[in-house]
Amino acid sequence: MTKSNIKKAALAAHKKHQGKIEIAGRAPLRNKKDLSLYYTPGVAAVSSYVAAHKNAVRDYTLAGRTVAVVSDGSAVLGLGNIGPEGALPVMEGKALLFKEFGGVDAFPIVLNANTADEIIAAVKAIAPGFGGINLEDIAAPKCFEVEERLMNELDIPVMHDDQHGTAVVVLAGLINAFKAVKKDIKKSTVAVIGAGAAGTAIAKLLVLYGIGDIIVADSRGIIDSTREDLDERKKELARLTNKNGRSGDLLAALEGADAVIGVSKGGLLSAVHIRRMAKDPIVFAMANPDPEILPIVAKAAGAKVVATGRSDFENQINNVLAFPGIFKGALENRVRRITPEIKIRAAERLAALVAKPTASQIIPSVFDKRVVKAVAGAVKKSAKRKA
Amino acid sequence: MTKSNIKKAALAAHKKHQGKIEIAGRAPLRNKKDLSLYYTPGVAAVSSYVAAHKNAVRDYTLAGRTVAVVSDGSAVLGLGNIGPEGALPVMEGKALLFKEFGGVDAFPIVLNANTADEIIAAVKAIAPGFGGINLEDIAAPKCFEVEERLMNELDIPVMHDDQHGTAVVVLAGLINAFKAVKKDIKKSTVAVIGAGAAGTAIAKLLVLYGIGDIIVADSRGIIDSTREDLDERKKELARLTNKNGRSGDLLAALEGADAVIGVSKGGLLSAVHIRRMAKDPIVFAMANPDPEILPIVAKAAGAKVVATGRSDFENQINNVLAFPGIFKGALENRVRRITPEIKIRAAERLAALVAKPTASQIIPSVFDKRVVKAVAGAVKKSAKRKA
Repeated sequence: MTKSNIKKAALAAHKKHQGKIEIAGRAPLRNKKDLSLYYTPGVAAVSSYVAAHKNAVRDYTLAGRTVAVVSDGSAVLGLGNIGPEGALPVMEGKALLFKEFGGVDAFPIVLNANTADEIIAAVKAIAPGFGGINLEDIAAPKCFEVEERLMNELDIPVMHDDQHGTAVVVLAGLINAFKAVKKDIKKSTVAVIGAGAAGTAIAKLLVLYGIGDIIVADSRGIIDSTREDLDERKKELARLTNKNGRSGDLLAALEGADAVIGVSKGGLLSAVHIRRMAKDPIVFAMANPDPEILPIVAKAAGAKVVATGRSDFENQINNVLAFPGIFKGALENRVRRITPEIKIRAAERLAALVAKPTASQIIPSVFDKRVVKAVAGAVKKSAKRKA
Repeated sequence: MTKSNIKKAALAAHKKHQGKIEIAGRAPLRNKKDLSLYYTPGVAAVSSYVAAHKNAVRDYTLAGRTVAVVSDGSAVLGLGNIGPEGALPVMEGKALLFKEFGGVDAFPIVLNANTADEIIAAVKAIAPGFGGINLEDIAAPKCFEVEERLMNELDIPVMHDDQHGTAVVVLAGLINAFKAVKKDIKKSTVAVIGAGAAGTAIAKLLVLYGIGDIIVADSRGIIDSTREDLDERKKELARLTNKNGRSGDLLAALEGADAVIGVSKGGLLSAVHIRRMAKDPIVFAMANPDPEILPIVAKAAGAKVVATGRSDFENQINNVLAFPGIFKGALENRVRRITPEIKIRAAERLAALVAKPTASQIIPSVFDKRVVKAVAGAVKKSAKRKA
């Protein structure tokens, strides 16, 4: 389909179904007896019990198996700050993906809220009815404060998927991409282009995974500790990455890199950039809908493995490979925090599903039925280790 | 079943299903094409369109057909202030009733919020994702402020069901009860015992319906304008009711009344009270789970028609007769406000479903399939009249 046809078809399909998810009963209501069990008077016993044993809310209600997909609409896809109404189709879609790919109940919550404080207050207010919070499409830098404070102040798992879902799938793809080019990922240099929500989380996860060196670049060039324009978050990135204190522009960031992860803007990279990289370069060009460089251009310039965020090219780096399984595992095992350990193990499990990684297949298909189980299992294993 | 057996069975049933509702997809996700329509890149077109035409959110997402069932857990059933976790089984049950009886999608939102301001802030924050707000089990008097402000500040229908759902079904039952005893309701005197959320709304709706006179009593006796302990709300009730300025205790409130509506405490009324009433008295004893007076005792004292909130006695006054149809009609017709006109018409339609009211049948069964259509139709008619 052409772009224009997809737009028309998407609008028509959404209008036809008036959205994408609905509520379904999971208990029968056929007669007065059913009513007396699931509503009054029977429900009073359940309410009393739950009020006296707060944690039982997870066993006796939907709260134990339901994720809130929360956005303020401040950074929706590549559309920018389009507000809560504009965000709702995406969040409802995410809830659909949670159910269809993970069997996880999820409900979209779009917030009329502007500041981090307002978002945090609203999420804390509604939290008693949920088993997890998936933050989505919240602009940087407020997304960092929102996630960090909610993780500390709530006793259920909170994850900003634009950061961590992306980071998990990128790491999984990277593990296999290095296998495909027969290089040791732990001794490699990886350039991360873009230091927003995704770039920050990717860089931090790659550091924790133990990659040789990471070079992060923002719109002003390589992030190094001598720069005077860095906020606290970028100062932290400068401390964690760039072991040799390199500085310079985008081209300098790619100099000798074994892999580049683009989470920036469409068209930012050209053949010139790719040619500066090490032998058999790996290119993840994940800007959406237009990647930093088209696969055909990257390959012509020598790229050995190319991945994008798009379904119409090979090697699609898609968050749906991670978030349903991560929350499924967290809900089923009552995991309170999605730790770096969990994310790394999830990435490893995801990577391991591709038995023999090749340049054109570094990551499983989103329709691969094994994915959710593998990722959820990683959370389970981590949960048990900690217990 | 005995009380203890119902409790055990309700706990077991809730645990078995881990609650009562779940999320279901209403769009297929079988392949990449489906993904591109309902998620990226197609969803971007829907988000852009909705962001530019905010009202379209009701056509293209679940917001146009989904009600939030909101409670802070401050007055749950007869259990008091048991908090959001304790409230969740009731709100999830209400969402199940919305779907099963009305075909309306509804989702429970339980709030960690204490003051009216906090409740209002949380509901306003999440409102963009919903087509209506059903407030539930919020303690008086804060429920009045919460409802009034949300009605004024949001552009979707907001209804505190403990007030208005109850009032609609009571009026419907009362219309038929007066037919059953062959008296003219418009010339009657009705005593309302209890001046909380339900009592206040019932008294106001009966006044608007044009009943001869209403006497409202709270725990200190008849509400009359000479009392010096009345807050603004009760002062308003004093102005609207009690045309002859009667004063006195509970017994005085029932003196000569054609009907009594109890929305107070179990066991408050005795045969002595009923005997003070006019000939062929009508008794609605709606305290839950224990009514103000047992039907057998009321009848022995001369009551001609007795109704309660319970399913195990005849004439059950159950909110489920009203709220699914009211919200269904409001959502389908984009009605912004549930006006008194709508409530009265809904009550009349509900009453009319009982072709020949008798003392033992003044109200349709909750399983009567005609109920939702009749009530929703009343909203529709009112909506059109106004347009």
